[in-house]
Amino acid sequence: MRDFSCDHHWLSINTATVRQQRGVDWPLPQILEACARRGIRAVAPWRDQVAAAGLQATSRRLRDLGLVLSGYCRGGMFPYKHAAGQAAARGDNQRALDEACELGAPCLVLVVGGLPGALAGQAAHKDLARARQQVVEGIAELLQAARERRMPLAIEPLHPMYAADRACINTLAQALDVCDALDPGRTGALGVALDVYHVWWDPLLQQQIARAGAARLLAFHVCDWLTPTTDLLNDRGMMGDGVIDIPRIRGWIEAQGYAGFSEVEIFSTGHWWQREGGEVLDTCIQRHRSCV
Amino acid sequence: MRDFSCDHHWLSINTATVRQQRGVDWPLPQILEACARRGIRAVAPWRDQVAAAGLQATSRRLRDLGLVLSGYCRGGMFPYKHAAGQAAARGDNQRALDEACELGAPCLVLVVGGLPGALAGQAAHKDLARARQQVVEGIAELLQAARERRMPLAIEPLHPMYAADRACINTLAQALDVCDALDPGRTGALGVALDVYHVWWDPLLQQQIARAGAARLLAFHVCDWLTPTTDLLNDRGMMGDGVIDIPRIRGWIEAQGYAGFSEVEIFSTGHWWQREGGEVLDTCIQRHRSCV
Repeated sequence: MRDFSCDHHWLSINTATVRQQRGVDWPLPQILEACARRGIRAVAPWRDQVAAAGLQATSRRLRDLGLVLSGYCRGGMFPYKHAAGQAAARGDNQRALDEACELGAPCLVLVVGGLPGALAGQAAHKDLARARQQVVEGIAELLQAARERRMPLAIEPLHPMYAADRACINTLAQALDVCDALDPGRTGALGVALDVYHVWWDPLLQQQIARAGAARLLAFHVCDWLTPTTDLLNDRGMMGDGVIDIPRIRGWIEAQGYAGFSEVEIFSTGHWWQREGGEVLDTCIQRHRSCV
Repeated sequence: MRDFSCDHHWLSINTATVRQQRGVDWPLPQILEACARRGIRAVAPWRDQVAAAGLQATSRRLRDLGLVLSGYCRGGMFPYKHAAGQAAARGDNQRALDEACELGAPCLVLVVGGLPGALAGQAAHKDLARARQQVVEGIAELLQAARERRMPLAIEPLHPMYAADRACINTLAQALDVCDALDPGRTGALGVALDVYHVWWDPLLQQQIARAGAARLLAFHVCDWLTPTTDLLNDRGMMGDGVIDIPRIRGWIEAQGYAGFSEVEIFSTGHWWQREGGEVLDTCIQRHRSCV
């Protein structure tokens, strides 16, 4: 297992972690500069942040600063109510792929979506199996375009508490079933983004990480699970402040050969989004060394 | 599948659903009378409510009103930090068993516990595997006492969002693994309490219900998953107000031979606990007929 205690060579910052501090947007260019200034080598930006800063401008800035991506957030949201929704999602995902290519991302992360309409508070139906089938079909279709562009797709299984509204792929086993169905040859075109927040509870986690192997482990995200957790979406903890045994999980993926970044992704309305952005980045560096 | 549309013969009320209305405790004797007055035949009371009303008095009142139990809430909380904690949990669970016998419960429901200390906000450690091992050992020990009393134990797998602080058994498969390990003969002494709120998201649910069979399906709890859900514990929905396809799940368990009660268990600080108790019970009856 790699020693993270002496440097932050393998730290990446998901830019949602510092996107809005004390109610004020922190624009992507400034986030990138603040990362580079601290010797952080990688980031994972969100599409809306890139759009606001400009795609080409962001691409240039990344190169100028010597930053690489650990992933691009995000494609997905496949389940649809009407054909029009399917077509819109298709077009949007193709654009996400193109952006990921322009930015030199190692993978496009997929948050696959749940019951159509549920995120807006009104699910169109309750048929989770149908939504899951639409996810498989959507990924199958996107995978063709992704292969042409040599851009790997990383399915991110989300915690079961998001099954209704954000992602109906909720365990690593389920994500790997999709990978095995659509990419049986393990070509590297399709894999998973493993976020400890979503999977730490899973009694099959170690076993399924072994099943995944290095070929399927495309990204590794960290934060922590707080007790109590006061909000389903935006009360994630900084590594070390919660109950997840992160080094143990990192040990499992590295035993399979994972040798990439450890990407910090923290949504925290009440705590970290109330701090100064530079302080949050400094804390990420410190905790990366001591708690990951 | 049984027709629930014309009566509420198979409705049971978990008394947490109406335990405190508009900030005022509704004492158990009054809850029982309000249920009986509406032709509700079964309840599942909580230990603290029974303690407040008196065990023998509650037992008498149940008989006088012609009410039966669909389960008794609850035993469990097995993981411990020190031997003293283990001994305290052991004694408490034995008392829960005795109370369940006195009340004529069909099973004692087990919420097995998570990381010791986490419910109070400070987990003693992060070793979920160790906590799970202690759960298996605790159930094994309690099962001996339960067999002597002929009181079945119903392991309730809790939603993964409670893995840290309330229950580290988080899927039906995991609960059934414990059942198979400790009661390989499927004697009826050990089974599961299946709450749709905790398991509805599980891609293996139908398959694992088939694995459980009637011998292991000891209780069936209903409520609904709201979108959005604003609190991890106390924002459960009334059946029909959320995204869970309850009739489909009931169909799966009845296909295995389940023929018991459908127990409504709703924790709802913001909505149902703000209504008049009788109105909540009337709504439960109506939704039991139309949405379960």
